[in-house]
Amino acid sequence: MGYVIENITVITWDNDELKVIKNATVETEQSKISYVGCKKNDTPKSSGKVKIDGMGKVLVPGFVNAHTHIPMTLLRSYADDLDLHTWLFDHIFKIEDKLTDDDVYWGTQLGLLEMIAGGTTCFSDMYYFVDQIADATAQSGVRALLSRGLTNDEDKDDYSDDYRINEAIETFNKWNGAENNRIRVAFAPHAIYTCAPKYIRAIRDTAEKLGAYIHVHVDETLKEHNDSLRQYGKTPAQHLYDIGLFDLPTIAAHCVHVTEQDMDLMKEKNVSFIHNPGSNLKLGSGIAPVPDALRKGINVALGTDGASSNNNLNMWEEMNLAALIHKGSRLDPLAVRAEEAFKMATVNGAKALGFNNAGQIKEGFYADMVLIDLSKPHYFPEHNLVSNLAYSAQASDVETVFVDGKILYDKGEYKTLDREKILYNINRVCQRLFN
Amino acid sequence: MGYVIENITVITWDNDELKVIKNATVETEQSKISYVGCKKNDTPKSSGKVKIDGMGKVLVPGFVNAHTHIPMTLLRSYADDLDLHTWLFDHIFKIEDKLTDDDVYWGTQLGLLEMIAGGTTCFSDMYYFVDQIADATAQSGVRALLSRGLTNDEDKDDYSDDYRINEAIETFNKWNGAENNRIRVAFAPHAIYTCAPKYIRAIRDTAEKLGAYIHVHVDETLKEHNDSLRQYGKTPAQHLYDIGLFDLPTIAAHCVHVTEQDMDLMKEKNVSFIHNPGSNLKLGSGIAPVPDALRKGINVALGTDGASSNNNLNMWEEMNLAALIHKGSRLDPLAVRAEEAFKMATVNGAKALGFNNAGQIKEGFYADMVLIDLSKPHYFPEHNLVSNLAYSAQASDVETVFVDGKILYDKGEYKTLDREKILYNINRVCQRLFN
Repeated sequence: MGYVIENITVITWDNDELKVIKNATVETEQSKISYVGCKKNDTPKSSGKVKIDGMGKVLVPGFVNAHTHIPMTLLRSYADDLDLHTWLFDHIFKIEDKLTDDDVYWGTQLGLLEMIAGGTTCFSDMYYFVDQIADATAQSGVRALLSRGLTNDEDKDDYSDDYRINEAIETFNKWNGAENNRIRVAFAPHAIYTCAPKYIRAIRDTAEKLGAYIHVHVDETLKEHNDSLRQYGKTPAQHLYDIGLFDLPTIAAHCVHVTEQDMDLMKEKNVSFIHNPGSNLKLGSGIAPVPDALRKGINVALGTDGASSNNNLNMWEEMNLAALIHKGSRLDPLAVRAEEAFKMATVNGAKALGFNNAGQIKEGFYADMVLIDLSKPHYFPEHNLVSNLAYSAQASDVETVFVDGKILYDKGEYKTLDREKILYNINRVCQRLFN
Repeated sequence: MGYVIENITVITWDNDELKVIKNATVETEQSKISYVGCKKNDTPKSSGKVKIDGMGKVLVPGFVNAHTHIPMTLLRSYADDLDLHTWLFDHIFKIEDKLTDDDVYWGTQLGLLEMIAGGTTCFSDMYYFVDQIADATAQSGVRALLSRGLTNDEDKDDYSDDYRINEAIETFNKWNGAENNRIRVAFAPHAIYTCAPKYIRAIRDTAEKLGAYIHVHVDETLKEHNDSLRQYGKTPAQHLYDIGLFDLPTIAAHCVHVTEQDMDLMKEKNVSFIHNPGSNLKLGSGIAPVPDALRKGINVALGTDGASSNNNLNMWEEMNLAALIHKGSRLDPLAVRAEEAFKMATVNGAKALGFNNAGQIKEGFYADMVLIDLSKPHYFPEHNLVSNLAYSAQASDVETVFVDGKILYDKGEYKTLDREKILYNINRVCQRLFN
């Protein structure tokens, strides 16, 4: 079983180098890409495969949303345009206290609907009721690194009875490597302001034993930064480094206020810097030092954060923001180039999440690919296709989405999710939650 | 002739106040809106009108793109990610020197295709070959304030033989008030760095005689700002104020580096501040002091600038950027609220351009309206519809576009423009221009 996409333009990354291949053929075999090239005739292996004409389209690696809280779609446009403290304590936390596993299940499905339609093929999540998130993700066909957000500010020596860590271990044992390794599980100390140092250490040690990745919020706001200096005499990144968290493969979300020295530590430990421009702007958190991180050779990827602070899960917008805002804030039109932003949204995200065989259109890699319709006026003329994708495109230009060699979405139709049922259930659960 | 839109949610501005009307009926009669309300039964006047079911949709005033150079669609994605000087002098000007009236005509048509599909019903343009721009605009059905960009740095006392000003006067006489006042013509001294002071004065006096609006670039870059201080001992805005330009109704594009005092002058003279966030970011020009302008009560509207520095004509993105970037750059989540950004994109734009009976869904106003499909996942749940439009929406959510009471676009179909012919001609003219 597989697909043959003919007459297609391919944009991909061969390791670090951008490649644009015109008039190409791309073949898949089961979950993998089996051929990328410019052959004119079918190979014997092509027989029996479904042919797709790629004329007027471009095939790109699927987007990787490297930091989100997917069930927060339920809170989209709820309590917007408030200051962070009022928003979080008076509104968001109050609703989150009422969330049930059923709510999280449907909130996840809604997020998957949106992500798939916009060409996101892989995401990294941090939330609770992860069993439901994993269930919905498994059904959807999307690739994911899931984690249970862990918070505990009680400083003690033994956390073996911590129900959250135990829940996270259970989730790991149940879901890590599931669905042909399409789902993996990370450990997620939420942030330094919600986790005692010894709690972070305990999570780290557990993750190390299990060989798991770490997903953590780092230096999102100036308040976090300054509180850390006051409380620990060091920055949040230095604090986590000293605890040994960065010895494990780590996804560090936000990094808005990290210093040059922090970035040197991140580079030393190969920590991925997850830029969430939409959320950081909307919450007034600031503008992360992405051009500096790029200059240092840090792996920078992109995330939407939760829909409640964005307010969508649209990776096209994040790519666009990543390409634009640093130019403007630094008065430097070269701060982040279109192709760098495109790379952050794709291959860098796959690397960050440890899906090392995803994020490129390359033989032997997972067939996580997006076919984009180039017939809309905003793609004309085509002086530079990567520029057109980074600066002009819309998520709705996505025509077909493949993950693991399967089509999840084609011309507006979902192949694995029941859109009507999901929207019906979103209205149902929201009526209870918000009334 | 007219339309009756039933069961519709309406978002509009009643002067300065946001109004959301649920289960409303909106009727049009010829070019105008004839009824907005919640009646349950048809009035005799409804008979013979075309009924549209608005269930699950929202009707908003069409977007006003208050500053663009529409034929620059031809340069979309051309020479991106270069510094401003290299971009402009080595690339853009070289192509612009080769532009013919035919190129401008098709470039305009391409821009109109894109703007209409994204719900832009009105725009303010500055370019040359304005006769072709006006022709294409007239055919398209879109509302516009057009102007011939005027540049001359020769300082003399008499410009009566200036071919550019004379061309602008000719354009004014031919097109101002055309198409039932759907097209008007402004005068456009390009900028203080391309126009001698006496040239600006001559343009101002001509415009005053004809009762025309002014469209001008103001303080776009730090270089313009500092050069002005050096050359004239004052800021660009102060310089234009002293010349008397602001005594006429003025659209001031960019205003990235205007000072508090400059904004006081703008407020005093009722100058509209046109914010072009996408272009200002992309070219590394900076972030305009929009929150301060709003606080002073200045009329702030939005523009895309030309597609070559954006790279599209998508007002949804500008609205989104206007709502986001000031929060992030000022670390203030309240800097520009969603409803303020929405207002900038609609009614403030109409005011800026002097289309005082546009920009609101209100009886007696022009029927320049956009029907938006709310069935996409990113509109769920609907805690706050204005937030969903400002933060979550995509241009492709636009379903039907009315201008002057006529439908220009409906479910992907253009009613006044020939998409295939336009795209064919774009390829044709680009082959000559860029080879």
